Amino acid sequence: MPDIIKIRDVANYEEQEVQLQGWLYNKRSSGKLRFLLLRDGTETIQCVVFKGSVSEEVFEKATQLTQESSFRVIGKVTKDERSPLGFELQVSDLEIVHLADEYPITKKEHGTDFLMDNRHLWLRSSRQHAIIRVRHEIIRSAREFFDNRGFTLVDAPIFTPNAAEGTTTLFETDYFEEKAYLTQSGQLYGEAGAMAFGDIYCFGPTFRAEKSKTRRHLTEFWMIEPEMAFCDLNKDMQVAEEFVSHIVQNVIKNRNKELTILERNLDFLSNVKPPFPKIHYREAVEILKKNNIDFKDGDDFGGTDETVISEQFDRPVIVHHYPAQVKAFYMKRDPQEPESALAMDMLAPEGYGEIIGGSQREDDYTALLERIKEHNLPEKAFAWYLDLRKYGSVPHAGFGLGIERTVSWICGLSHVRETIPFPRTMHRLYP
Amino acid sequence: MPDIIKIRDVANYEEQEVQLQGWLYNKRSSGKLRFLLLRDGTETIQCVVFKGSVSEEVFEKATQLTQESSFRVIGKVTKDERSPLGFELQVSDLEIVHLADEYPITKKEHGTDFLMDNRHLWLRSSRQHAIIRVRHEIIRSAREFFDNRGFTLVDAPIFTPNAAEGTTTLFETDYFEEKAYLTQSGQLYGEAGAMAFGDIYCFGPTFRAEKSKTRRHLTEFWMIEPEMAFCDLNKDMQVAEEFVSHIVQNVIKNRNKELTILERNLDFLSNVKPPFPKIHYREAVEILKKNNIDFKDGDDFGGTDETVISEQFDRPVIVHHYPAQVKAFYMKRDPQEPESALAMDMLAPEGYGEIIGGSQREDDYTALLERIKEHNLPEKAFAWYLDLRKYGSVPHAGFGLGIERTVSWICGLSHVRETIPFPRTMHRLYP
Repeated sequence: MPDIIKIRDVANYEEQEVQLQGWLYNKRSSGKLRFLLLRDGTETIQCVVFKGSVSEEVFEKATQLTQESSFRVIGKVTKDERSPLGFELQVSDLEIVHLADEYPITKKEHGTDFLMDNRHLWLRSSRQHAIIRVRHEIIRSAREFFDNRGFTLVDAPIFTPNAAEGTTTLFETDYFEEKAYLTQSGQLYGEAGAMAFGDIYCFGPTFRAEKSKTRRHLTEFWMIEPEMAFCDLNKDMQVAEEFVSHIVQNVIKNRNKELTILERNLDFLSNVKPPFPKIHYREAVEILKKNNIDFKDGDDFGGTDETVISEQFDRPVIVHHYPAQVKAFYMKRDPQEPESALAMDMLAPEGYGEIIGGSQREDDYTALLERIKEHNLPEKAFAWYLDLRKYGSVPHAGFGLGIERTVSWICGLSHVRETIPFPRTMHRLYP
Repeated sequence: MPDIIKIRDVANYEEQEVQLQGWLYNKRSSGKLRFLLLRDGTETIQCVVFKGSVSEEVFEKATQLTQESSFRVIGKVTKDERSPLGFELQVSDLEIVHLADEYPITKKEHGTDFLMDNRHLWLRSSRQHAIIRVRHEIIRSAREFFDNRGFTLVDAPIFTPNAAEGTTTLFETDYFEEKAYLTQSGQLYGEAGAMAFGDIYCFGPTFRAEKSKTRRHLTEFWMIEPEMAFCDLNKDMQVAEEFVSHIVQNVIKNRNKELTILERNLDFLSNVKPPFPKIHYREAVEILKKNNIDFKDGDDFGGTDETVISEQFDRPVIVHHYPAQVKAFYMKRDPQEPESALAMDMLAPEGYGEIIGGSQREDDYTALLERIKEHNLPEKAFAWYLDLRKYGSVPHAGFGLGIERTVSWICGLSHVRETIPFPRTMHRLYP
């Protein structure tokens, strides 16, 4: 028997006999010919079954095959200029592994609920393949960026006794007769890591029990969060722009085929190189006013505001110096303008909104304790966090990048639900 | 001002002026000399402050510095054969960033509870540094192994509506008036991924509400789980041994310094190369009998049993063909011996026990449905999982590697609690 190979490797086997195995993605019949589109997860290839070249039994099997049936074929790899792959297979033998029942996902239009109910099958479509592969590349290059710069991975816990940003949107669980909450961000723990290792990142799922049904919200989403000791807001913004550029350029380079399948316009993506425009909150408010947006100075930006601001630029824009009162308690205030936090958000172009939120952190014990009290946070639960300001406190900063929003932007999707293999939303816990 | 560099890079700056920043790890005084051991998270370096070479003010600051105080120094990098780093710094200027309060972790022996209460500070010690760095390298090379082989990352959800292996050890949470459970394994979802992408892996935290206080148990632990379509038990075992060898050899190569700090005996680790011994469950039982262990044939192995079995070998051992009744419902039975599951566990040497559990999965719809009923599992919740056997079912297999147990083994630790930055156990939810 010839070697079993993956379809992505057929170019190395031109004019040779190989064995392939996978699922039937599509089929055409024409007289004495059966054209079987075989997918094996790495690629798809057209397998040509000619009645004159195979046994009657094999031709019968090829005729029987239903969509998503699994099968093995033996055949010769030949050049085929017309196919996207550049090769097809001239079949000499075929074995059915499993004849599929009538496949529920057909070529007709399906409703979103139906597709989401069948997410375990929907993942087999070429469009979902492309998205998940881009997601993988985003995650791979995100880790690579920090690994190459000598950051240490310091995983934050998922179970936490306290909440970084209020308790209303927390998932709660019984923890051996105590209460535990699912983390909304690894940042506070990342700060402890930065005091130990200098530059760290954590990367894991985070959770928000938000009752929002917008196209930007999941209850379970992944975040990568670097935290750097001896770092101020400026350096933080610089690392963030280099980081996002690294990811985007890697996806363009390594997942070009997938972006083509997604019909992604690369004009905006190709621009994503440092430096990014960086504007003060005040300038962002000016943009809104110029565009006749009804906005109350001092508020945080909503989705529409972010869209209008980001539409002014040809690459992601960083807005910094948000009013302290709309930002989290742990953000340091600018000594030069104490009403502003040393905070920054990165807004993706084309209306994709916030993909990064970050800040320089309050490093003064007394100021931080005051904020904790102001926000009515349980001081005892934050004792360890305050400790970081007692023993060798240093200026430090970091940010968090939401993976799903980044996938959504880079793939050009209209809804975040396709950015993760098994999305969880307010009304979606299955499959 | 000279460039700010990281201590790990000083070798490139011999006889040059540099600026370093970090925390005081240790200090010695001797007349006109202050020896400051500076750590910046990448390395530690001895900074020599000679009274004759600096201003009175700088010498006074060097004298004042307490353990874990943060500071910046300027000085010349010089060779020092006696130090582990090979270099020291001749200080010309010094600036205190923050003078630390009396540091709670001293050189004296501390109890485990005290250290765990201060985990956010304990992470700064050289031993904890070494462990977390080895952990990082394990995770990095685990991903690298699958990325290099063309596996696709398919993240499994954390919130699940049903449980893979019974509900008694599940953490439960309110999910918008429904119940959701925290995942114990991404495997079932991984199987859907394998039918879509061929070879996949998922990697994330998993949860078990076990009331056990052994040195091997955490409530929150990380698992990497590959799943492969068109794969049987034999290939599964082969991938597992190549995977574990890849990780161990990478740690030996890239984290040798850390293993030295941990005083890890490398004899056993160096042996970790394929092929690993693979023994049938029956042979494992024979080993227990020969060693006069009281063991009931047909049971699963306990911790002591695993230790005795693994002690017979100089590298990890794979035990396969466990009795089906002690294994999970989704494991395929061997048609040649239907009482046995096509299951395998990998036991680490030196008494570290199970680090991998895996199997070939039941791929027949009727057989799987029967198992689900036998185990009184909710058929409706598994409808999607059964679907995978309706639409192009194929032989498939996979396994899960527990990161923390692997860290524990490779680092030679006696307790799993030091293998993760912020461990969660039955009695530990803080910090």
